[in-house]
Amino acid sequence: MVDSANSIPEPDFALAGRLFATLDEHTRDGAGITRASYGTGEQFAHELMTNTARQLGLDVSHDATGNLYLTLKGRSGRTFLVASHLDSVPQGGNFDGAAGVIAGMAIVSAWKRAQFTPTNNITVMAIRAEESTWFPYSYIGSKGALGLLPGSALDVKRVDTGRTLASHIDDLGFDSASLRKGVSHWKGSDLRGYAELHIEQGPVLIGNNLPLALVTGIRGSFRYRDAKIIGEYGHSGAVPRAYRHDAVVAAADFVTQLDSKWQRLEEEGHDLTVTIGKLFTDPAQHAFSKIAGEIGICIDVRSHSKPTLAVVKTYIDALAAEIARKYGVRFELGVLTGSEPAAMDPDLVARFERAANALGIAHSRMASGAGHDAATFASAGIPASMIFVRNQNGSHNPDEAMQMEDFELAVRVLARGIANLD
Amino acid sequence: MVDSANSIPEPDFALAGRLFATLDEHTRDGAGITRASYGTGEQFAHELMTNTARQLGLDVSHDATGNLYLTLKGRSGRTFLVASHLDSVPQGGNFDGAAGVIAGMAIVSAWKRAQFTPTNNITVMAIRAEESTWFPYSYIGSKGALGLLPGSALDVKRVDTGRTLASHIDDLGFDSASLRKGVSHWKGSDLRGYAELHIEQGPVLIGNNLPLALVTGIRGSFRYRDAKIIGEYGHSGAVPRAYRHDAVVAAADFVTQLDSKWQRLEEEGHDLTVTIGKLFTDPAQHAFSKIAGEIGICIDVRSHSKPTLAVVKTYIDALAAEIARKYGVRFELGVLTGSEPAAMDPDLVARFERAANALGIAHSRMASGAGHDAATFASAGIPASMIFVRNQNGSHNPDEAMQMEDFELAVRVLARGIANLD
Repeated sequence: MVDSANSIPEPDFALAGRLFATLDEHTRDGAGITRASYGTGEQFAHELMTNTARQLGLDVSHDATGNLYLTLKGRSGRTFLVASHLDSVPQGGNFDGAAGVIAGMAIVSAWKRAQFTPTNNITVMAIRAEESTWFPYSYIGSKGALGLLPGSALDVKRVDTGRTLASHIDDLGFDSASLRKGVSHWKGSDLRGYAELHIEQGPVLIGNNLPLALVTGIRGSFRYRDAKIIGEYGHSGAVPRAYRHDAVVAAADFVTQLDSKWQRLEEEGHDLTVTIGKLFTDPAQHAFSKIAGEIGICIDVRSHSKPTLAVVKTYIDALAAEIARKYGVRFELGVLTGSEPAAMDPDLVARFERAANALGIAHSRMASGAGHDAATFASAGIPASMIFVRNQNGSHNPDEAMQMEDFELAVRVLARGIANLD
Repeated sequence: MVDSANSIPEPDFALAGRLFATLDEHTRDGAGITRASYGTGEQFAHELMTNTARQLGLDVSHDATGNLYLTLKGRSGRTFLVASHLDSVPQGGNFDGAAGVIAGMAIVSAWKRAQFTPTNNITVMAIRAEESTWFPYSYIGSKGALGLLPGSALDVKRVDTGRTLASHIDDLGFDSASLRKGVSHWKGSDLRGYAELHIEQGPVLIGNNLPLALVTGIRGSFRYRDAKIIGEYGHSGAVPRAYRHDAVVAAADFVTQLDSKWQRLEEEGHDLTVTIGKLFTDPAQHAFSKIAGEIGICIDVRSHSKPTLAVVKTYIDALAAEIARKYGVRFELGVLTGSEPAAMDPDLVARFERAANALGIAHSRMASGAGHDAATFASAGIPASMIFVRNQNGSHNPDEAMQMEDFELAVRVLARGIANLD
């Protein structure tokens, strides 16, 4: 097979730069970037991509979930998705999510202009509602696209507006009724594969001094998003130690013991993260002179290994019972949510590796600690892949700082990997 | 000396009942009671007492701080203050503070109607701004009355309105400029003494099955009201353990170790309470999928013993430094505030004990774990006293539940103690 890479047009990085700048300008929210799922910021990003695609002469379509598809026709009838999400966490950064969509736009823009025709349709997919801080449910957009969103998820309320997912979807002119019937926008046989370029959300590529990595798999998780520990309010000076049921002290003991357990499991070789991202006494009730009678807490546990997740789940349940007895408090762990670990497609991973090697770009393989929509496609049996781009300061915060040089290297690898995919 | 107790009129408990009910009705805020310092609820309570006093034919006056004085004339030219505050914590109960003012109203109402003339003027004093959750400063009203409020306290901002104490005082028609000059409303020689009836804010009287106690002294304190622990935000799944600077885990370790230290000191016989009433990740930034980069914390430490307070202060400073090193986080402990321990006047304590004995009412002596305005008067050299009334469910919460039978016993002791005080 002749390597036709030399004929692949250089991606349109000038367009990419303009799209990043426009998104930053219009969705900045103080120090960070806020693009709420089905909210103003996400919608602005969708309209920006739609208008850009129309100017480029791409096909524009939507599905019932409101995911956006911008298509450059290929020679086969099948479609390869270059996908990512356009929403962000509150006060996040400009790159988490948007980089994968803009990567696709840079590729199809250049190919359209150069009249380069890829093997498959290349469809840039802008996925809705990936950041489940808004609607506490994982992979809404990608599950919706494949008809895999359960009806109960449509009744989940957005945490800031208090309105249901279904009503947000319908308000933007999409079709929650069709989702409720489980209609898939895609037949599996229509799709040749899926690739998602994303900033690395940890410090591993920085530590290894590499611009990019090919993702081998995505960690699964379980979460208690809205747990509570309930004790008893009391006067800080007047209630002796023996009479207290202090929610803060109970929570601190719980977190300290859980963190020690993580340390022991890691030392034993388990792949694992354990995170208490939120811990908060009630602002309407707490005071410096009151023993805290209640504290909110969320627990996020991730691993590549299902047995490891099970070990931690069992530990947490036992620890909660022990702490409840010790302090005379009550745990309300609330709803348990989570996701299965998912493997990326080995053939696509190998293909992107060959592309990187041919371009002389240093890279590594790594697993993803964070969840991504790629997991939905992989779990549905569609060959899925991810490319991670080096990124300073983590993500989900205002300081994420992908360098454009690294982005460009990753987009070149992506373009070369998908251009002539049989 | 002839005991003239039999001639002391029975306090007006019907009036007391009406005043409690009216306060409850007009300052209820959902489950609890909210009477913000210099806010709507406190002002309503002041106007209720003013109108009641005018109907009874008492003298009504104010000082520059806005404290209210309702006076029944006595035979001597000196004044005995029956005092307490009318503000409450947010979502507090109906009795903390108000019971002491209503006790005074029940006494002077009955005496006025019966034309009973006490030795000294009996002045019911409704003190402003005792609950320092609103203005983070202790004993505003009582210090203002004695010209002891530093100018800097007048610049403190109310946490909900963001406006200064001075502007709140002036808006209600009082005189912050005079306070700034340190003008005292009272000459020490004018005052015969001070008595404050208050619900017990802990469970000790319940545990001992007693309706009331005479307070021997008031715990001193130190506080970090607005401390912070600052780490680094990051993605919960993507940042490995070794790279984290997790503010929640650091705070949990800090609280757990500080609580263990309290336990050891208590076992060694120290009088002490240590309370973390507020512990909260930033609602604008926290998320279940983010490592917490910051957590707010407040620390309240109380003891009858100044050396014990010093031991804990030294321990906290060292522990903060150790935790900062261990997790790579930073402590901002912020401003340190506090108060000195204060002894009640032994002669007044003994006098109330004799009154209780004469009335056949069971009682004990106890120290106060909570701070009270009585401490300001005691520290200024004015003979001060407190009577605690048994109370269910603690205070500073909606469930405080003083029984009227216990209140009546305590008011009878108070009345008998002050009626014929030379």
